[in-house]
Amino acid sequence: MTETYFSARDEVMLFEQAFRQRVPVMLTGPTGCGKTRLVEHMGLLLGRPVVTISCHDDLTSSDLVGRFMVTGGDVVWTDGPLTWAVKAGAICYLDEVVEARHDSLAVLHSLTDHRRTLYLDRAGEVVRAPAEFMLVCSYNPAYRSSLKELKPSFRQRFATLSMNYLPPDREAEVVVAETGVALPVAQRLVRCAVAIRTAQEAFHFEPPSTRVLVTAAQLIVSGAMKLAAADACILAPLSTDGAISDGLREIAAACLAGADI
Amino acid sequence: MTETYFSARDEVMLFEQAFRQRVPVMLTGPTGCGKTRLVEHMGLLLGRPVVTISCHDDLTSSDLVGRFMVTGGDVVWTDGPLTWAVKAGAICYLDEVVEARHDSLAVLHSLTDHRRTLYLDRAGEVVRAPAEFMLVCSYNPAYRSSLKELKPSFRQRFATLSMNYLPPDREAEVVVAETGVALPVAQRLVRCAVAIRTAQEAFHFEPPSTRVLVTAAQLIVSGAMKLAAADACILAPLSTDGAISDGLREIAAACLAGADI
Amino acid sequence: MTETYFSARDEVMLFEQAFRQRVPVMLTGPTGCGKTRLVEHMGLLLGRPVVTISCHDDLTSSDLVGRFMVTGGDVVWTDGPLTWAVKAGAICYLDEVVEARHDSLAVLHSLTDHRRTLYLDRAGEVVRAPAEFMLVCSYNPAYRSSLKELKPSFRQRFATLSMNYLPPDREAEVVVAETGVALPVAQRLVRCAVAIRTAQEAFHFEPPSTRVLVTAAQLIVSGAMKLAAADACILAPLSTDGAISDGLREIAAACLAGADI
Amino acid sequence: MTETYFSARDEVMLFEQAFRQRVPVMLTGPTGCGKTRLVEHMGLLLGRPVVTISCHDDLTSSDLVGRFMVTGGDVVWTDGPLTWAVKAGAICYLDEVVEARHDSLAVLHSLTDHRRTLYLDRAGEVVRAPAEFMLVCSYNPAYRSSLKELKPSFRQRFATLSMNYLPPDREAEVVVAETGVALPVAQRLVRCAVAIRTAQEAFHFEPPSTRVLVTAAQLIVSGAMKLAAADACILAPLSTDGAISDGLREIAAACLAGADI
Amino acid sequence: MTETYFSARDEVMLFEQAFRQRVPVMLTGPTGCGKTRLVEHMGLLLGRPVVTISCHDDLTSSDLVGRFMVTGGDVVWTDGPLTWAVKAGAICYLDEVVEARHDSLAVLHSLTDHRRTLYLDRAGEVVRAPAEFMLVCSYNPAYRSSLKELKPSFRQRFATLSMNYLPPDREAEVVVAETGVALPVAQRLVRCAVAIRTAQEAFHFEPPSTRVLVTAAQLIVSGAMKLAAADACILAPLSTDGAISDGLREIAAACLAGADI
Amino acid sequence: MTETYFSARDEVMLFEQAFRQRVPVMLTGPTGCGKTRLVEHMGLLLGRPVVTISCHDDLTSSDLVGRFMVTGGDVVWTDGPLTWAVKAGAICYLDEVVEARHDSLAVLHSLTDHRRTLYLDRAGEVVRAPAEFMLVCSYNPAYRSSLKELKPSFRQRFATLSMNYLPPDREAEVVVAETGVALPVAQRLVRCAVAIRTAQEAFHFEPPSTRVLVTAAQLIVSGAMKLAAADACILAPLSTDGAISDGLREIAAACLAGADI
Repeated sequence: MTETYFSARDEVMLFEQAFRQRVPVMLTGPTGCGKTRLVEHMGLLLGRPVVTISCHDDLTSSDLVGRFMVTGGDVVWTDGPLTWAVKAGAICYLDEVVEARHDSLAVLHSLTDHRRTLYLDRAGEVVRAPAEFMLVCSYNPAYRSSLKELKPSFRQRFATLSMNYLPPDREAEVVVAETGVALPVAQRLVRCAVAIRTAQEAFHFEPPSTRVLVTAAQLIVSGAMKLAAADACILAPLSTDGAISDGLREIAAACLAGADI
Repeated sequence: MTETYFSARDEVMLFEQAFRQRVPVMLTGPTGCGKTRLVEHMGLLLGRPVVTISCHDDLTSSDLVGRFMVTGGDVVWTDGPLTWAVKAGAICYLDEVVEARHDSLAVLHSLTDHRRTLYLDRAGEVVRAPAEFMLVCSYNPAYRSSLKELKPSFRQRFATLSMNYLPPDREAEVVVAETGVALPVAQRLVRCAVAIRTAQEAFHFEPPSTRVLVTAAQLIVSGAMKLAAADACILAPLSTDGAISDGLREIAAACLAGADI
Repeated sequence: MTETYFSARDEVMLFEQAFRQRVPVMLTGPTGCGKTRLVEHMGLLLGRPVVTISCHDDLTSSDLVGRFMVTGGDVVWTDGPLTWAVKAGAICYLDEVVEARHDSLAVLHSLTDHRRTLYLDRAGEVVRAPAEFMLVCSYNPAYRSSLKELKPSFRQRFATLSMNYLPPDREAEVVVAETGVALPVAQRLVRCAVAIRTAQEAFHFEPPSTRVLVTAAQLIVSGAMKLAAADACILAPLSTDGAISDGLREIAAACLAGADI
Repeated sequence: MTETYFSARDEVMLFEQAFRQRVPVMLTGPTGCGKTRLVEHMGLLLGRPVVTISCHDDLTSSDLVGRFMVTGGDVVWTDGPLTWAVKAGAICYLDEVVEARHDSLAVLHSLTDHRRTLYLDRAGEVVRAPAEFMLVCSYNPAYRSSLKELKPSFRQRFATLSMNYLPPDREAEVVVAETGVALPVAQRLVRCAVAIRTAQEAFHFEPPSTRVLVTAAQLIVSGAMKLAAADACILAPLSTDGAISDGLREIAAACLAGADI
Repeated sequence: MTETYFSARDEVMLFEQAFRQRVPVMLTGPTGCGKTRLVEHMGLLLGRPVVTISCHDDLTSSDLVGRFMVTGGDVVWTDGPLTWAVKAGAICYLDEVVEARHDSLAVLHSLTDHRRTLYLDRAGEVVRAPAEFMLVCSYNPAYRSSLKELKPSFRQRFATLSMNYLPPDREAEVVVAETGVALPVAQRLVRCAVAIRTAQEAFHFEPPSTRVLVTAAQLIVSGAMKLAAADACILAPLSTDGAISDGLREIAAACLAGADI
Repeated sequence: MTETYFSARDEVMLFEQAFRQRVPVMLTGPTGCGKTRLVEHMGLLLGRPVVTISCHDDLTSSDLVGRFMVTGGDVVWTDGPLTWAVKAGAICYLDEVVEARHDSLAVLHSLTDHRRTLYLDRAGEVVRAPAEFMLVCSYNPAYRSSLKELKPSFRQRFATLSMNYLPPDREAEVVVAETGVALPVAQRLVRCAVAIRTAQEAFHFEPPSTRVLVTAAQLIVSGAMKLAAADACILAPLSTDGAISDGLREIAAACLAGADI
């Protein structure tokens, strides 16, 4: 799988400007639209290592900053991934930050204002971030109904870059580049995804991401029938409701028609 | 009990294609339709060990990836079953993954995208999965009313194979193969199960699985009366409501009639 | 107190057939109808030790399978009662299994299907059950309104034996055998219990068990007045509502009348 | 303060019969009606030590049966008060048992049926209760609206003795015996309590116990004005609602009138 | 700041009588009316040290009675503040006892009845309180809407002393004595507080305490404008609702008028 | 970024008077209006170090006062940041105190009344605050709908200083001083913020802070288009609702117009 990044709008430029000004960045957009890829791409472009932390309900601030651990009978402080990233001047990427508990995020406050400092209360240590350190967070605002929401005061600490799916032609190029599938097949898979994304608002499910198109193309390259691959990778994850699944299958069959199924 | 696997549709082929393309697989379908058996079968077919993890509410990410343990006064990292499976290039099977807490599943993200990497934050170790490693999950979408649901973004990380009960003739063959009961008895037990599965939507209970037919056949082989065995193994687990139980017993008696009860 | 078991229907035979076929058994029925006694009786009959575990909300899977414990500075694995029972080929009896948390029951899955294997993930050990090992669970389906319910897929792993109170004559024999009270007194106590059990559906309380009749008979043998003993052992545990208690006392007085109160 | 026990009905006789027959006893009745005193009295009468355990939400089964504790680097089992009581053949008294979590009570099951055995799963020890061991529980059924309720199957394990306040004359004798206050004053305090207890159902508060009469009498003996003492010890704990308090004060003033206030 | 106590009614006399009779005391009344001051005053008067414990949701019984702690590899019992107070014959003051979890209060039962004994179950120690030990609790019944309430049976264990704000003249004297502000200013501040307390029932907020008057006077002594001081110390803590704040400011301005603002 | 503080009203004077009188201070006002800056400014002005603690749900009292830690096999007490601040006579600043659990705040009671003392119950130590120690808390009352609220009795322990945004001219000066952006651009950014703050009540979102204006100016200085910078830093954090975002963008475009976009 190649590492080429396909830019959609001006997100690369704004990201770099934020990096130069030491402003933390918040990426928003639907699942699989390329947020993680952008961060990895910027890491390469800016020459900084990327430390990725998948956020979840159970992530404590100790998981971020570190903890005391017993070694040889003694207690020794061990840096967590955030502390390590600050000290190394890395890009620290908190994926799906909305999933984290608010209290775990409190430790980020002093890193995201003019102080740019991490206070390790338990270790009694104060770490000032070097100029190269950058904090990036991401979340999917489509989960608007979620009980959890980022506090407005937290969101205001970031420059926010809104991302979205690539335009169809670019998306098909990505599918070809990552799987080696024939371009017409990739185009039909994208057409299928676009049709479902358009129907999405009525059906209330997460729209299919570029990732599932890549997966379907992989199975096709490996010998699977196109409709079977689309069924397993694009349609089945969307809904387990029989009637909806039937409707989706009709859309998919229509979009894939003409390709040598 | 034999280990023969009776394939229902194209699930063996798609599973193998996903394995070759390093795409994780999600199995869906009713209880006892053969999901666990498929995974064990594919492990034999592909020559990979299978590591099974039954998911539940209390499963922490430490239970999956490992933890530090005190040995001889020192603290030593001990791999969990997921880490062990990644390192060994095994098939790691998360049974009933919908039961797991979402935060425990976050550790799977980097394993199920192009990174195919397990980050052991606490151990400070990064494990890249070998080509042979495969992640398989399963759940029963009939528990639709459950408070827990898999996040759409999680489901999109997998190729989904929808499974169902075997056709009646194949199912009766399985019952005979696993218990040695006479074919006509197996056929009547299957007929009984099919009748109840058909009535299921009205009654709102989990339909009887192939497993309970095997159990009933085992008791019959051991000398139990057919209706008593069906009562204990097929009917009693379905409902404790008196009226429903009586209705079910009538269905069962009709289906089993003709056999030498 | 004697250990004689009074069989009500065919439960002893079905239990033994399940044991021979290595099928786990689920006992259902009202409190005090003899479920625990049946298990103890079968243990003697089949020559297997019985390990009883009272289930409750706070029972962890570690309480079942075992845990690491610090001894002399080192950490040593200690088998829990379930692991001990599997290794010893015992009958392991989980009393009131519906009270247990679902996650604690997940460890039973691999023991109750064709694998008959206990995976000790934390100890890194795999224990295959010998032919003599048997798992028995029990619960009272009358607690239908409970928030907790056994998952249907869990219930389908067992042959279910529905139990109930003994017929009145057998129940009176039990009361005599266990307490030495005169038969006419035992009969009146049973008549009293039957009357209340009949009235139960209107009153919505747990019907009186054989156990409370034995207790009342014990106090009577020890010199208590019959109505006072019935009041303390049969009526008072049923309800604390004044009006209902008065009604019950009238029923009891009528049933006990004629005996030398 | 003297230790004389004033018996209200036949509770001493029934308690002793239950002790002789090894039947556990459940005491019910309003706060301060003498449940704890009865248990202490029976301990002296039967020559058994009394181990009292105040139940509450946070009481674990380890608090009852014991736990492993680190001493000198090693881990040593330490008996809890219940285990100690079983081994010593004591009367173990669980005060306000309805406050305990159900799971903590599960450990009592095997002690309260024919087994009379305590299973210390974690210590791997089995303790059979000697004939002198007795389990006594108490609770106040007036807390009927509580979210917590004892399970019926738990209540059926006990002979239940319903207790209530002493008749007025006896109660006044108790107040005199415990404080040395003049009998007419004690009688007026009791009259005041009886009037409030009668009004209680309309007001929905816990009726005043014998204990508060004793406390009020103590303050009076120490020089307090009678109405001030009644206000502080009898009225103020009942309600903080101004209107209700005024009504209660009128009742009290009327009942205490004639005494030399 | 002086330590003079200004008595409002007969609370000093009743407190002392309760101390002589070893009756525990419950203080009730609004925030800042002098409950803590009374306890400190009585400690000086009776010659007993005062141990103050601020109650809260997270206070465990171990925080009260003590716990085992590791020292030099061994485990040593360490008395908590309650145990220390019992042994020292101190006055133990549980401030805002209604905030404590009920289970933490269970340990007080045996200290507040005729036993006057602290059972340290975990340490296996029994501590009888000396005659000089006294338990005092306090709470504010105005928080009537709180989800937490003291159990009636708990309240009946105490002689309850209801306290309230001092009469205006006494309150102004206190403000002068504690801050050195001129009497007319103190009187206007008190007038302002009384006006707001009267309006309180309509506004549903906690009335201003003597403490906030003292604080306002302190700022005035330090050079602040009177209205600014009243705004910061008396009005701002009451409400953050704009309309209400404006109304309060008018009341304050009227009451303070005439003083040299 | 400079450290100049721009005073809005009389908050510096009142803060200093409170410091001289040892009165704790509560700062209220919207996010980003300068509360943290004021505390840092006062620390410089009064010559005291500032210890900042970001409050959150998971902050325990041990995190504030300290805990025992194992070092070299022994257990040693380690002061927390609050204890350190008290001993050092520092200004201790609890940011967003409303986020803290009430029980964690109980430890502040004795520090915020005439006692000015910190009781370290677990360490058995009593720390009297030196005259230079000052406690400052802050919260945003606009989160009025929050489930959490500070208890009135807690709020009355502080002199409350209400803060707000700077007047537009001062705010533009701050943006220039901190970023070096041209004054007309800063003025347009402020005009944009003021317009949105005015519209805020209808839209129900947190108004844009001075901080987001500074961030937008930073990106502009770094070469970003003005509207793109305003979009990323001012508009995007406010709302993810498409319709609202469009409305906001119109407002922003109008306010920024005339600047060389």
